[in-house]
Order: sequence, then structure tokens, then C-alpha cells
Amino acid sequence: MYKTLISFTVTLVLVSGQTWADDAALRTKAENAGLKPIPLAYQRVNDNALSQEKLELGWMLFFDPRISASGLISCNTCHNLSTGGDDNLPTSVGHGWQKGPRNAPTVLNSVFNSAQFWDGRAPDLKEQAKGPVQAGVEMANDSVSVVKTLNSMPEYVERFEQAFPGQADPVTFDNMAKAIEVFEVTLVTPNGPFDQWLRGNDDALTDAQKAGLELFVDKGCTACHSGVNVGGQGYFPFGLIKKPGADILPPDDKGRFEVTKTVSDEYVFRAAPLRNVSLTAPYFHSGQVWDLQQAVSVMALSQLGVELSDEQAGLIADFLRSLEGEQPHIGYPVLPVETAATPRPRF
Amino acid sequence: MYKTLISFTVTLVLVSGQTWADDAALRTKAENAGLKPIPLAYQRVNDNALSQEKLELGWMLFFDPRISASGLISCNTCHNLSTGGDDNLPTSVGHGWQKGPRNAPTVLNSVFNSAQFWDGRAPDLKEQAKGPVQAGVEMANDSVSVVKTLNSMPEYVERFEQAFPGQADPVTFDNMAKAIEVFEVTLVTPNGPFDQWLRGNDDALTDAQKAGLELFVDKGCTACHSGVNVGGQGYFPFGLIKKPGADILPPDDKGRFEVTKTVSDEYVFRAAPLRNVSLTAPYFHSGQVWDLQQAVSVMALSQLGVELSDEQAGLIADFLRSLEGEQPHIGYPVLPVETAATPRPRF
Repeated sequence: MYKTLISFTVTLVLVSGQTWADDAALRTKAENAGLKPIPLAYQRVNDNALSQEKLELGWMLFFDPRISASGLISCNTCHNLSTGGDDNLPTSVGHGWQKGPRNAPTVLNSVFNSAQFWDGRAPDLKEQAKGPVQAGVEMANDSVSVVKTLNSMPEYVERFEQAFPGQADPVTFDNMAKAIEVFEVTLVTPNGPFDQWLRGNDDALTDAQKAGLELFVDKGCTACHSGVNVGGQGYFPFGLIKKPGADILPPDDKGRFEVTKTVSDEYVFRAAPLRNVSLTAPYFHSGQVWDLQQAVSVMALSQLGVELSDEQAGLIADFLRSLEGEQPHIGYPVLPVETAATPRPRF
Repeated sequence: MYKTLISFTVTLVLVSGQTWADDAALRTKAENAGLKPIPLAYQRVNDNALSQEKLELGWMLFFDPRISASGLISCNTCHNLSTGGDDNLPTSVGHGWQKGPRNAPTVLNSVFNSAQFWDGRAPDLKEQAKGPVQAGVEMANDSVSVVKTLNSMPEYVERFEQAFPGQADPVTFDNMAKAIEVFEVTLVTPNGPFDQWLRGNDDALTDAQKAGLELFVDKGCTACHSGVNVGGQGYFPFGLIKKPGADILPPDDKGRFEVTKTVSDEYVFRAAPLRNVSLTAPYFHSGQVWDLQQAVSVMALSQLGVELSDEQAGLIADFLRSLEGEQPHIGYPVLPVETAATPRPRF
């Protein structure tokens, strides 16, 4: 009789396991670990003020393949807004079908990163935007040719004049980048389940996700992955405790060392922002891990020296899926037509 | 005194040359030559009925790069709705940066063509849609892999079920093509200046455009370029009177002969539809002519044996610019995320 009662109680706990004991305490723990919702209003603090004219121009430029040498590759090719703001490839494919050295990070919420690129070599999005346009393995173009292309189309000239009023010669490579930055600043994904839960809606996360969140904080993941973007803030050696295999951490990519030339920056990367991470497989700068749970296990072992059980890694992956927010629904621009003065595609 | 008067009169005629003598007569002439406005309501007569579910599904598929082997190339890559429904390249670039054999035709108004491709080898858009997906130089995929990809994403499975109700296994390669066809049927560009003028608005064309239209009819261009799409209806030998150079008409591309294996079809191509032709340089199946006026001159000489003056060719080109219609303003879809069952990109 006693045994039966215990058995009954256990069953009851399992069934009623749908209710997390104390959401408020977990919320405090998450907040103390630096986790924050995506703000519903935010301001980009730099010298590039937002305007409707810049936003529209940047939207057009983001989708315009003619800023690449071939006339085939746009920002959206690798940062595809249909598919989580990235290309879902291990490393991107660019001019001449060359494969880039690193996985394309998502453009979504990139405004909340402290710096851009895996090695943080661009301080902000307008600096970032200039990189791929000129990179030989990406768009393979040069600033002079880009400006010539933009100047060849009267509608673009007019839009640059409106977006950068009072400038004698507004069609510049820098202004192109500024316009793209303003568009990208709008590419945020608020109101995901985790944001709703942080704001007080206990039902927005499943119990598995809450358990995953607790593990995420308790195991120390938030040491690197915190803030609005759940990462994207600081630089850390990949393989701090235990170096992953050469497939995941190829020896010839020394990360931030390429920027600072400082030995202590060898294999140092910007902590990946984890917003929408469930939409942006494959993972890591090498793009060699396709499964989110596996990526969690790799990180726990390499960065924290923690061997997670499959269940634990699965719970953390469940939590990470709650970082998927409302995707931007935007229009597809109709772009100005080339003229006789437009540089011909080189491919 | 008499001489002075004449001189004055001539000047007057030139200045008042803004007014075309008889729009009604020219309109009758154009209509008799088979030119028609893009209808504001039309019905696609085949076995693929339109529905909102099919339209949305087709819209998503049209933009989805994951129906290509690499995960990088969508229908929109070569038929870019930002840039006149084509890619503005001489010939398209596909899988592995391979160059295709022919210039990508615009998808805009393609519903009004009697058949698809330069050689008309697909009777309709749903047949056309299957070609590039499987072509080794384009998307380099196969139907089995495409269906596996689509079946791997629950949202797609659900959308196929809704778009093709009552079918036991609706996620098929044929249904994919049908959905894409329904989306493409909506990609029309009505109300261009020529359409407005045909419907009675005398002011919709400039006098130069009216003069160009008159030449277009009088010189015989409408023998091949008529109907709603100002072409796209019949098959004609390129170089009927005088073969253009091998740069424009490469000897190894025998056109419709590849379809029919009939000697009389050597170098026969479907007459290019001229709607939005000012947006779709470079020209001809070889994509070797960038200037519209030059393309007009080449055609007049090769097809009609007519050597146009620069002024005449310029007037006809002016008329052709009036075939630019209202471009479709559409949204950019947010696509379903891959799962563990989605075939990995092969590239």
C-alpha cells in the first residue's frame, strides 16, 4: 500500500511537470547573468543618423547584385533574409564560386554586437559593409567601380542626394556603407519566446526550455553569451579548456590574431551571438557542425571543460530555440536600370 | 519674302512637332499589326488552377535557394525581380560558376508567351520551371533530392497539402513546378506608356515614340513581334535575310533544331518578347549586344534586310522603352528552416 502510494506520487510529479517551480527566481538568475530581451525601441549611437531616405536606399543597396564585380552577388546572397540572415552554408560561396574562409554570420540583430566579423575587425556595420564588397573571394569589386556603377543610374544619384543632403558629391563608397548600415540596423527580431518570458510571460517558455536556461546559466555559458544578443560582445579563445578537432578549429585560421598580431589572440574569436541560432546552422566559424545540440556539447567541453549529458545538451538546445524572434517581413525592391555608363559585369 | 515665310513655317512645324498628327490612325495601324495591351484581367488556360495557397507556396519556392544542389541558387537568381526579371548578364552563371549557353529571358509577362525558353522546348511555365532546377550548369539538382528537401521542412509539407488538397502525397516535383507557375503567372507589368496609349491616352507616348512605333510597324518588325508580349509567339530563323556575326549568332547553338532535330529549324529561335526590353540588356540569346538601338539595327538588317538610319533605329528604341510597365512590388518571403533531414548543400 505504501509502495503504491509513492509510485502514484511520482507519476503525479511527472505529469504535473509542466509547471516550472519558480519562474521569478529563474528570471532573476538569467538577468543577473546578463541576459536581456531585444529592446522594442533602440538607438544606434554613432555618427550615422537614421532617416527614411537612408533606410530605403540601404534596403535597395542590400539587395543590389550590381555592387559586386559579377553583377550576381548582393549582400543578401550570403546574408539571406529569407533564411535567418545567413546562407546556411559551411562557408560562403563568392566570386568565381570561391569558398570563403569562415561561416557567414547572420545580419539579424547584428546591430547589437559590439563589433562585426568573427574576429571583430570592423567596429560597426558601416565598416563591415565595405569588406565583402571588396573581398576577392566575395563580391570582388573595388570602391571606384562601385561608385561608378551607382553614379551611372540617375535614380541612385537622386536617392543619395536625398539621403545625404547638402553634400557636394553624395555618391560615395562611405555613404553606400552608411545607407546599408541604416537598413541593417532595422533587421532585428524581437518578441521571441525568451524575450516574452523575460518580460514576465511564464508560459512563453516550455519547462524543457526553462531547464535548459538554468543549465545555460549554471554551467557558465553566460560568461561569454550574454547581453541582448546572447553573445557578440567579447573575444575568447576557442578551445580555452580543450581544443576541438582540426575540422572544427582549423589550425590555419588564427582568428583575432590576424587583426591584432598579438600572440595571445591566436584562435580568439568573438563569442557568437546566439539569437536565432536555430535558423543559422551550420555552426562555428568553420561551419562544420550542423546539429545545435552537438554544437552545445562541443562548446561546453572546449570552453568550460564540462561534459554535458545528451539530455543536458538537448535541454540547452531547446532553450536556444526560444531565441528565435519575429523575422523581418520586408519588400523586395525594384532597382534602377543600368545605363550605357554602368560598368559591365566582370565574371 | 516668300523664302522667309517658308523658313518660318518649317521652324513652326519643328517646334510644334510635339503633337502627333493622327493618333487614332496610328492606333488602328498598331492594332491591325497585332499589337495589344497587357490585359488587366486574364486567365491562364491550363490544368493548373490559381489559388491563394498555390500562389504563396510558389512565391516561397521561387525565392528558395535550397531547391538548388548548392543551396545558393534560386529561380530569382537568374530571373531577378529587382532587375526586370532577369540577371543582366550575357549568359547566366550557375552551379560551380558555370556559364549557361543562353541569355536568361525575363520571367515578367512570360505567361503571355506561347512557349518557354529561347527554343520553345517547354510548352508552359510549369514545364519550364523544372528545367533549370535539374540543369547541371544551373541549379544542378535532381527531382528526388528536391522532394527530399521540401519534405524535410514541416511548413512546406503543410503548405503543399493546402495548395494541393486531397492528394495523398502532395509534395512532388510536379506540384512544386505548378506552384511556381501560379506565382509566375502573376508577374505581369501592365499599364506601361504603350498600354495607356493603346487604350486611348494620346499623351502616354512621346512623338518620338509614336514615330518609332510607326517605323516598327511599317518596316515589318510586327511580323514577328506582335501580340500582348510584342513577341514570344512564333519561331523564326535568326539571320533570315543576312546572318549576323558569329559573336551574336554562335555557330554551335542551333536553336530550335536541338528540340525538333529538323534541319529547317537550324538557328531558329522564338521571337523575343519585347515587353520591358529596356530593362533586360544585354540582348539576343547570346547576350552579346548591350545597346538597345544597336540591337534594333542588327535585327532590321538580319531579319528584314533593312538598313535603318541611326535616327530610325533610335526612334524604334524610343518606342520600345514605352513597353516598360508597372513592375510587381512583392514581399520577400521568410522561408521554413532546414531540419536534420534536409539534404546538405553540395557545392
